[in-house]
Amino acid sequence: MKTDLTRLQRRLKISFAHPGLLQEALTHRSAGSRNNERLEFLGDAALGFVIAHELFHRFPKAREGELSRMRASLVNQTTLAALARRLELGEWLILGAGELKSGGFRRDSILSDALEAVIGAIVEDRGIEPCRHWILSLFSEHLAALEEGSWQKDPKTRLQEFLQSRGLSLPRYELISQQGSPHDQEFTVACQVELLDAACHGCGRSRKHAEQQAAAAALKKLSERFGKDL
Amino acid sequence: MKTDLTRLQRRLKISFAHPGLLQEALTHRSAGSRNNERLEFLGDAALGFVIAHELFHRFPKAREGELSRMRASLVNQTTLAALARRLELGEWLILGAGELKSGGFRRDSILSDALEAVIGAIVEDRGIEPCRHWILSLFSEHLAALEEGSWQKDPKTRLQEFLQSRGLSLPRYELISQQGSPHDQEFTVACQVELLDAACHGCGRSRKHAEQQAAAAALKKLSERFGKDL
Repeated sequence: MKTDLTRLQRRLKISFAHPGLLQEALTHRSAGSRNNERLEFLGDAALGFVIAHELFHRFPKAREGELSRMRASLVNQTTLAALARRLELGEWLILGAGELKSGGFRRDSILSDALEAVIGAIVEDRGIEPCRHWILSLFSEHLAALEEGSWQKDPKTRLQEFLQSRGLSLPRYELISQQGSPHDQEFTVACQVELLDAACHGCGRSRKHAEQQAAAAALKKLSERFGKDL
Repeated sequence: MKTDLTRLQRRLKISFAHPGLLQEALTHRSAGSRNNERLEFLGDAALGFVIAHELFHRFPKAREGELSRMRASLVNQTTLAALARRLELGEWLILGAGELKSGGFRRDSILSDALEAVIGAIVEDRGIEPCRHWILSLFSEHLAALEEGSWQKDPKTRLQEFLQSRGLSLPRYELISQQGSPHDQEFTVACQVELLDAACHGCGRSRKHAEQQAAAAALKKLSERFGKDL
């Protein structure tokens, strides 16, 4: 565990008027009651706003559902943990004995929360405008990749991510029928989702394509149920 | 349907450099493809950040879970729709024929979305700092009420709101046993929640108290599962 916060500020390319905020942002709840959870709450909201604002401007023709999906592809535990690793945040984390022993400094959830807390500390120390610049610089490659359409995930991935984000079981796909001659086959697949009473079906010339169609049908039903474009 | 946006700007106590943004914010998706969904996306994020930032400062001793609950008590469809009604937004909404006929201008979801879109329009037209002041003025009474602890909802209410926010069924409470003499009874209640395999139990000297205890037990399990304080 490194303790030289001056070095970390150089690494983050930002200097804090109140380095105590940075220290708080690095303190996991396992290390005591003055930990990074409050700053994470603030940072999560700031990050959500900054990315929404940026996407709104970069993609003037994207619909709301597309903007939401793009944001979800940037702001999620996996991406945030990868960015935290690039900043080497893990080396500066302040963890309790148990988490230290079990390698908490490598865990996605702890790294992702710490990065959000660092963002909260920057908002608090410097204000939203400098924080916005810092976030946009951190996400610059990810934002550039969006312009190439990499966020347009396939229906199976989107369905899985939606269910996981709500702590629900993964969808189950089942081959219902396979018809036609070897070179002209039609597959039918059923997709079972915890939130939907009836299975959703999809057809296609390959099993994989039928699964994607079934996932798309499930997403459509869930979109109606939740009143938003998934 | 009123169309005089100058009057609405007086009502909102804000003047737009680009009144077209305000018009877009008032246009429900039933009225066409250039509607308020993009601005709602932006406004929702801005509102979440402004309220998080304000709560962070007003309640320096509140834990993250308390801040989240306070925010949820301010930023929800019911509260937003009530604020939209106070601003008489319904009278200016631009709705498609079907929604107009079925009274869409009175519906909570449409009013709440329109208010978020107006917030998005203010961010876009004036920037985040003026928008922040506008939001804080709009929520001033609600924020003042928080300081008196009105946000501290009971476990049954919190459990219900959490499940509703995820589109899940309401919890089911069942009286399991009732023991003791008439003036010294002990009630045991089971609480069934869609996301939890096993029922959660609570005991108390009244059925109501036992239900609250069972709901608190369910919230505890869900908090562990979702890794946050519910």
